[in-house]
Amino acid sequence: MFMRFVSRPAVAALAAVMFANLAAADEGMWLYTKPPTKYLKEKYGFEPTPTWLEHVQKSSVRFNTGGSGSLVSASGLVMTNHHVGSDNLEKFSTPEKNLLKTGFYAKTAADELKCEDLELNILWKIDDVTERVKGAAAKDMSPADANTARRKMMLTIEKECEDATKLDCQVVTLYKGGRYHLYQYKRYTDVRLVMAPEQDIAFFGGDTDNFEYPRFDLDMCFFRVYEDGKPLKPEHYLKWSQNGAADGDLVFVSGHPGRTQRQNTVEHLKYLRDFEMPLSLQRLWRREVQLATFMARNEEFERIASGDFFGVQNGRKARTGMLAGIQDPAVMARKIADEKKLRAAVDANPDYKGQWGDAWDQIAKALTSYRTFALRRQVGPNGDLFGIARDLVRLADELPKPSPERLREYADSNLDSLYLDLYSPKPIYDDLEINRIASGLSYMAEMLGYDDPYVQKALGGMSPQARAEMLVRGTKLKDVEVRKKIAAGGTEAIATSTDPMIKLAKDLDPEARALRKRYEDEIESAEREAYAKIAAAQFAINGEDAYPDATFTLRLAFGPVKGYKETGKDVPAFTDFAGMYQRATERKGQKGFELPKVWWDRKDKLDLKTPYNFVCTADIIGGNSGSPVVNTKGEVVGLIFDGNIQSLVLDIAYTEDQARAVSVDSRAMIEAMKKIYDAGPLAEEILKR
Amino acid sequence: MFMRFVSRPAVAALAAVMFANLAAADEGMWLYTKPPTKYLKEKYGFEPTPTWLEHVQKSSVRFNTGGSGSLVSASGLVMTNHHVGSDNLEKFSTPEKNLLKTGFYAKTAADELKCEDLELNILWKIDDVTERVKGAAAKDMSPADANTARRKMMLTIEKECEDATKLDCQVVTLYKGGRYHLYQYKRYTDVRLVMAPEQDIAFFGGDTDNFEYPRFDLDMCFFRVYEDGKPLKPEHYLKWSQNGAADGDLVFVSGHPGRTQRQNTVEHLKYLRDFEMPLSLQRLWRREVQLATFMARNEEFERIASGDFFGVQNGRKARTGMLAGIQDPAVMARKIADEKKLRAAVDANPDYKGQWGDAWDQIAKALTSYRTFALRRQVGPNGDLFGIARDLVRLADELPKPSPERLREYADSNLDSLYLDLYSPKPIYDDLEINRIASGLSYMAEMLGYDDPYVQKALGGMSPQARAEMLVRGTKLKDVEVRKKIAAGGTEAIATSTDPMIKLAKDLDPEARALRKRYEDEIESAEREAYAKIAAAQFAINGEDAYPDATFTLRLAFGPVKGYKETGKDVPAFTDFAGMYQRATERKGQKGFELPKVWWDRKDKLDLKTPYNFVCTADIIGGNSGSPVVNTKGEVVGLIFDGNIQSLVLDIAYTEDQARAVSVDSRAMIEAMKKIYDAGPLAEEILKR
Repeated sequence: MFMRFVSRPAVAALAAVMFANLAAADEGMWLYTKPPTKYLKEKYGFEPTPTWLEHVQKSSVRFNTGGSGSLVSASGLVMTNHHVGSDNLEKFSTPEKNLLKTGFYAKTAADELKCEDLELNILWKIDDVTERVKGAAAKDMSPADANTARRKMMLTIEKECEDATKLDCQVVTLYKGGRYHLYQYKRYTDVRLVMAPEQDIAFFGGDTDNFEYPRFDLDMCFFRVYEDGKPLKPEHYLKWSQNGAADGDLVFVSGHPGRTQRQNTVEHLKYLRDFEMPLSLQRLWRREVQLATFMARNEEFERIASGDFFGVQNGRKARTGMLAGIQDPAVMARKIADEKKLRAAVDANPDYKGQWGDAWDQIAKALTSYRTFALRRQVGPNGDLFGIARDLVRLADELPKPSPERLREYADSNLDSLYLDLYSPKPIYDDLEINRIASGLSYMAEMLGYDDPYVQKALGGMSPQARAEMLVRGTKLKDVEVRKKIAAGGTEAIATSTDPMIKLAKDLDPEARALRKRYEDEIESAEREAYAKIAAAQFAINGEDAYPDATFTLRLAFGPVKGYKETGKDVPAFTDFAGMYQRATERKGQKGFELPKVWWDRKDKLDLKTPYNFVCTADIIGGNSGSPVVNTKGEVVGLIFDGNIQSLVLDIAYTEDQARAVSVDSRAMIEAMKKIYDAGPLAEEILKR
Repeated sequence: MFMRFVSRPAVAALAAVMFANLAAADEGMWLYTKPPTKYLKEKYGFEPTPTWLEHVQKSSVRFNTGGSGSLVSASGLVMTNHHVGSDNLEKFSTPEKNLLKTGFYAKTAADELKCEDLELNILWKIDDVTERVKGAAAKDMSPADANTARRKMMLTIEKECEDATKLDCQVVTLYKGGRYHLYQYKRYTDVRLVMAPEQDIAFFGGDTDNFEYPRFDLDMCFFRVYEDGKPLKPEHYLKWSQNGAADGDLVFVSGHPGRTQRQNTVEHLKYLRDFEMPLSLQRLWRREVQLATFMARNEEFERIASGDFFGVQNGRKARTGMLAGIQDPAVMARKIADEKKLRAAVDANPDYKGQWGDAWDQIAKALTSYRTFALRRQVGPNGDLFGIARDLVRLADELPKPSPERLREYADSNLDSLYLDLYSPKPIYDDLEINRIASGLSYMAEMLGYDDPYVQKALGGMSPQARAEMLVRGTKLKDVEVRKKIAAGGTEAIATSTDPMIKLAKDLDPEARALRKRYEDEIESAEREAYAKIAAAQFAINGEDAYPDATFTLRLAFGPVKGYKETGKDVPAFTDFAGMYQRATERKGQKGFELPKVWWDRKDKLDLKTPYNFVCTADIIGGNSGSPVVNTKGEVVGLIFDGNIQSLVLDIAYTEDQARAVSVDSRAMIEAMKKIYDAGPLAEEILKR
């Protein structure tokens, strides 16, 4: 599965520039403000009109938990993936009633389950604010000061926008500093769970088939948006296709790709290849084993840790593919050649060279420096309770300041989302928290050395396990009212708190903040400036017809439904239910391949030839999970839930040779609702025209 | 399970000094030449006579695959653990007939299966050669030259001994340079498999219960030693106890603990804690996940990789426990206090100070230097085929030299064992080899950087996966005759070989050898010298009554059968078959808890009250797997197969509070042979007096 994309503003701001050679490829995660109209018209004879674009844009939904979705009925029904909704399924589950096992269907509105901390965004309006943001930094400022000035201006623009529009406003850094756009969202927080199948069918094949194709997953989940206590009557929602897609049909994917790193310089790619990815995989391997052993202890432990475990396994498999891609000398050779060409063009023009010629070295230098403290910036105690404590400590420090002076996630424009998360009544399990914190503390000691003062502060003279137990047993932060009380008490409440988790967050914060500041002042600022130069060079030399690297903001991708060849064999574009039963039979008794009983009981009712999953060449990545796949009429023909193994290299370079986006077919969803889940009314609501 | 201990001479030479405070603890892995007679007499009123010691010593067996065992019949029957014998079970298995699943019992001598590459050693004679070895290094030599001179002398002594005695002779470095002993072994290479239960009962509870207690494992396996084509009539073998052991009984463990690191200096322990153990765990976590995903692909992959997987999981669990121990501030505080005391005593005596005072700093300095290349020394392509290629390349280089000038493992005294391994007809599976090599190559790139010249040489311009496929598909080394032909061809055959695996080994060898030389000249020599000083200081200040750190050579440990307390609850010393059935029922359907069908079918025949597993306080560690547990009469009462979680800290410090050695009870073995496996004749052979 594509990983959901974690979308705290600080993270989403990590963009990169993208200008690829778009010769004849169905490449691109296009801005709605700059669609590839010419290419589409020439290659496919289809020209998306402004009306078409507006309709699809305003039917697209972003999940704050890191996925995509779309409005698919006149009554605010939202379609997304099971693995995007599963967070919420977990929160509604107990040892006795596990919705991940049983699935869920609300037969009536009264049965729908309100999600306490789920926020959906619909992108309503986009303004270019590049001039204002860039203009905030004076010419003679140091990169660090310029970076700070731009950040403050972004927060100022957001605040003005929110006061004026009542929309949720976010300035997005595109082309890694080449452009700044003000995105204005409608924000919905009354969201209710309507329907989800069992995890065993949504994630059929488990880790073994994850990121593989052919595939047989019903990775769908439905929510309903409410406004003023009533189902939303949306201005725009996607109609359902009568016939679905056929092999060769041009389709579009409208969603929120989380992050790509395609325009990274060669040195930056080497940094990923030789440092960042190996480090990140080390953590994932470690955590996967730790969680597997934790879960093996008993059934309840298996239930409470399954969300973490899925995330870790999924991230590990995705990064394994990315690393394999970046270790392929052919991929890197292309990158080296492209960069050489661009640098030669810059160097050939004295004016260009003077303005932009040093950008590549600037990035290399920043990354060399970052290597010395990147790891230190990433370690710390893990878990929900420590995150809550840190937010409380920082809120007390930040709120007294004017909004543009604060750390970005505590600015006024982000507070609503922050509180939604901070005061979420989601269950917190002591045993899992202890495991997470002990793991995080030991990781600090393993990586920085046990005697490191930062580590010693975190451990407080205890072993990682003993410290974790003390912290979790001693804190009162599981109680939402306690959190609210501390938040209300501000600096004073933090200063006098005896809660061990608050004390720990307080103890670690000076160093954590200093590391963050150092990153922003020395690394981020240099990268921003240098990538802005490279973007300018690209625009000047190759033209403006380009899309930026992904930023977990709305993009449009496209391409035909199309199979591919693998080790000489044809992999057809579509699978069907019959193939699923065959695979379940072949792999009987193996982990991940157990079909829910109802699928065997009702097998005879199903049309086994129903198209089930399919692939297309659209350019997508993690964060696109739950994106609708629409045809040229803007009708739903599928639901993105994954990319194949060959697609994982898309993080750094597009290829349409074998890389494919994987979707659930719209027809399979309807067939399952009607024949398996007794959810005829839901199917009717979706099909209604 | 205790990990088997890998025993190539180069590894076994890694000893460390041990002098603990033996106040009133059942501590120690004692040399047979220096047993704790006084302590035993005072505390237990039992004094092992020279006859008793000789009998137990000469009944003890070392497995070249890294475990222990014992002779238990007049016809050369050898008892060890299933997890020590499982290598051989794997080699006899095919997709159609998997001995790990089915178990094995040879009803007649003709049914016994000859193990092609298994070597057993029995320690026959011990001589102190400290003077000769130490004397080989002149006073004014550099540490590197002194180290080389000692190594040459060791090989010279071994050669003289072999020529004179026809025994297998090995000079063992004890007290990390404090003493050198010449161990003379009887060597047996005609060893046949007699009986093994199913892995599901031998390793009941799987990774979840591994290193835990209470426990329910029938971790036993029986071989028979042949001499001149007939069953060995041994001079010594252990009789079977009539009644087994009772709670509180004093018992002895005679076996080959692999390695302990108890007398490491504090800085050396910190090196383990902050560098070596985290690095080693990183590799294990990584490999565990990689193997798990490999095995999930199909049943045959699961079968062929299960040995690797068990080793990795087992090593990971053991090191997790060790790291937790060393991260416990109480353990380290004791180490710091002990060292402080000794150093103060040295510093207080000007003579001592002059001779030994700089030892601690010398070790710290060597380790600081080693950190800069330890990782580089450890990486490389993995797998059997690469190991074979490297041996062939090095044999060609080494054999023309006089024996004492060679790398130690190619000296005459080690060649028989080397050839046994090199020409083993054990199956090699392409898919697993590709997986191992791709993993090893990618690890090099991840850790050293893809562009590193050593890595580039290993990759040969390809991605790790492509390179691994090319190497494995292209090599002819799977054919034993090809290996022999290349070996016979010497330098010329290597120089002209077009085999890609040979070429790779040849390409990498200059750097690999240089790293080894650097390690030996700069690190090992400094450590050897410094630890010899600390040993001398210990002997002078605390007396000679001490045992050396483990070196995979024969030792005697002891202690009573005794339960312990854990989180306030009593853990009794014994379990029984009834407990096993209860646990199997509780954990039904979970991985690792499936009893073989025959155990359910014949449950009614069993005496469910038969003592099954038990714990005692004897001081053991990995390598002790398969050691006999004997009573004061020298009779078998059990079979060591594991330590509990609390015992994992024994690597660095003994504790008898909760740490326990875990054994199979002698009575359970007999009961299972008779009632479950229709192996009455085997039981009769063992019980015969």
